Amino acid sequence: MIEDKNQQRTPLSEFGEFGLIDHLTKNFKIQQKSTVKSIGDDAAVLNFKNKNIVVTTDMLVEGVHFDLSYVPLKHLGYKAVIVNLSDVYAMNARATQVTVSVAVSNRFPVEALEELYAGIETAASIYNIDVVGGDTTSSTTGLLISVTAIGEVETSHETYRSGAKPNDLLVVSGDLGGAYMGLQVLEREKEVYKVNPQNQPDLSLYTYIIERQLKPEARKDIVKLLEDLKVKPTSMIDVSDGLSSEIIHLCKNSKVGCDLYEEKIPLDPQVISTCEEFNIDSTTVALNGGEDYELLFTISQDDYPKIKANPHLTVIGHMKEAKEGMHLVTRADTRIPIKAQGWKNFNA
Amino acid sequence: MIEDKNQQRTPLSEFGEFGLIDHLTKNFKIQQKSTVKSIGDDAAVLNFKNKNIVVTTDMLVEGVHFDLSYVPLKHLGYKAVIVNLSDVYAMNARATQVTVSVAVSNRFPVEALEELYAGIETAASIYNIDVVGGDTTSSTTGLLISVTAIGEVETSHETYRSGAKPNDLLVVSGDLGGAYMGLQVLEREKEVYKVNPQNQPDLSLYTYIIERQLKPEARKDIVKLLEDLKVKPTSMIDVSDGLSSEIIHLCKNSKVGCDLYEEKIPLDPQVISTCEEFNIDSTTVALNGGEDYELLFTISQDDYPKIKANPHLTVIGHMKEAKEGMHLVTRADTRIPIKAQGWKNFNA
Repeated sequence: MIEDKNQQRTPLSEFGEFGLIDHLTKNFKIQQKSTVKSIGDDAAVLNFKNKNIVVTTDMLVEGVHFDLSYVPLKHLGYKAVIVNLSDVYAMNARATQVTVSVAVSNRFPVEALEELYAGIETAASIYNIDVVGGDTTSSTTGLLISVTAIGEVETSHETYRSGAKPNDLLVVSGDLGGAYMGLQVLEREKEVYKVNPQNQPDLSLYTYIIERQLKPEARKDIVKLLEDLKVKPTSMIDVSDGLSSEIIHLCKNSKVGCDLYEEKIPLDPQVISTCEEFNIDSTTVALNGGEDYELLFTISQDDYPKIKANPHLTVIGHMKEAKEGMHLVTRADTRIPIKAQGWKNFNA
Repeated sequence: MIEDKNQQRTPLSEFGEFGLIDHLTKNFKIQQKSTVKSIGDDAAVLNFKNKNIVVTTDMLVEGVHFDLSYVPLKHLGYKAVIVNLSDVYAMNARATQVTVSVAVSNRFPVEALEELYAGIETAASIYNIDVVGGDTTSSTTGLLISVTAIGEVETSHETYRSGAKPNDLLVVSGDLGGAYMGLQVLEREKEVYKVNPQNQPDLSLYTYIIERQLKPEARKDIVKLLEDLKVKPTSMIDVSDGLSSEIIHLCKNSKVGCDLYEEKIPLDPQVISTCEEFNIDSTTVALNGGEDYELLFTISQDDYPKIKANPHLTVIGHMKEAKEGMHLVTRADTRIPIKAQGWKNFNA
């Protein structure tokens, strides 16, 4: 929220449509063997031998998915890649390439796009993926980023949303609700800033949850961990819209029911304390908050010994017959039907 | 430009984020063997055996690439797919799948998106490709469509921008300048309509060029033709930004020069007559107009006998040493350097 008035501003019109994408991607390195040819022709060329490939796409829109008054552009570029990689990992696949399209209005200087692409490059470098294509165009108003991610997977490893069976255990990586609570803190600080721009916010109590919101990570490590543990999930999905709606996806696609135990839901202490401060129920936040990009999956009970000691994984419930429905079993041992909420961003 | 006031308008908020994409894609059929799993999971799964795959992405933005006052949504959906397929064909590859992301404001009812997706489905059906992924989100203002296209190609068939050699012949499919002149006619009619909404335009003189603008086709047939003729182009690109900038791309990537003969540039009679009517030079239109989605390629002179009688292909020049530069040889036999113009859509 602190603007450097002396920053350089090169108008986008200095570059043609072609020059700009070349300029922004010139430092990008190729790391994947499957990338035969990257940016610079009509299309990229890839070769995955005989492996299956997975493809997924996601868009981030200014004013809908992010607010540039507190999201640094570098973080935004990073996040735009991460949310797509998360979908690849949710197939139990290895992410290998992305294409990135950006629509941007003239109010952004070239330096802003450089920041955005620096974030994209950082994500590519950390997650060891290649940026193999892109399109940069103008928009009449805001900023919009559309990413397509590609990955590879052995047929024997593929994990869909549809394979869960009754009695399978429901497992989640990491902890939930952090990204949502980070957003609440940022929104509050934005309001404070509007009233008093001189106010210097103390965010030291919220470092973890703000990072969960601004710089989420995709759980590449969990895919690797499951492989090392020789656990093949029976179904898997990433937690982008909140635990409720992801459980419903798994149950509907697998034609099963589910009992989710409230007391088992993993919450970071910072999420719990911030929920208390904001007077919000932490279970509601975990169920409906979204944007945690953890992996939610089911495993056969036979695999329980392999995962039970792992600090990254928490068993939060088990699957049942479809006719038994989907329920949250509360700490008070009451059963509440699970309903989707997620991000209803079409509601005016 | 004629609005049916009685049309049904279902607000987007009637569907959740998930319901909408399911609703819009429920009739889409899978036609490609390489599509293992389509829409409905975190990612699509594809298998191309040991072939190379090509990936390309392109975005269309309201107010920049299209004007909904004269572009029907169905045509827009069709065109958004076509412009991407064209890039796949420009690699001498076979298009197999697309993913489609749409950002749309609340001013559009569900019926508008249905129209858009009907166009996408029509393109998929005609070009025999599968729509395997998508994202539908809200935008704060206009409509934006981002498409990623995937195709397959045998390594021996791959054609880059970089393979042209001095003395190779420069060949273009179809004819040029039509899409640009169609746009001029549509823009003129829009101005007339603003002044007098009762005016019923007579567009019968412009049917071909308007169709070139509103419903362009990608030259899948040319890729097939070249295969049947056993001609492998030494380099290839699609004509999306105008002949000048495409020639420059081929020359720069191949490190060659070029002589382009003005008298050889293929023009439809409707382009010529409309250029006369608008008092625009038809060569300028062909060089800088763009959006024709023809294929521009180079072939070895040895292959000339195989293509010379073909009505779809025109030899328009030949490649030279890089140091000789890139020139248009006019009808008056003067030599004018070729400069890029293309679509400078970042200029305010």
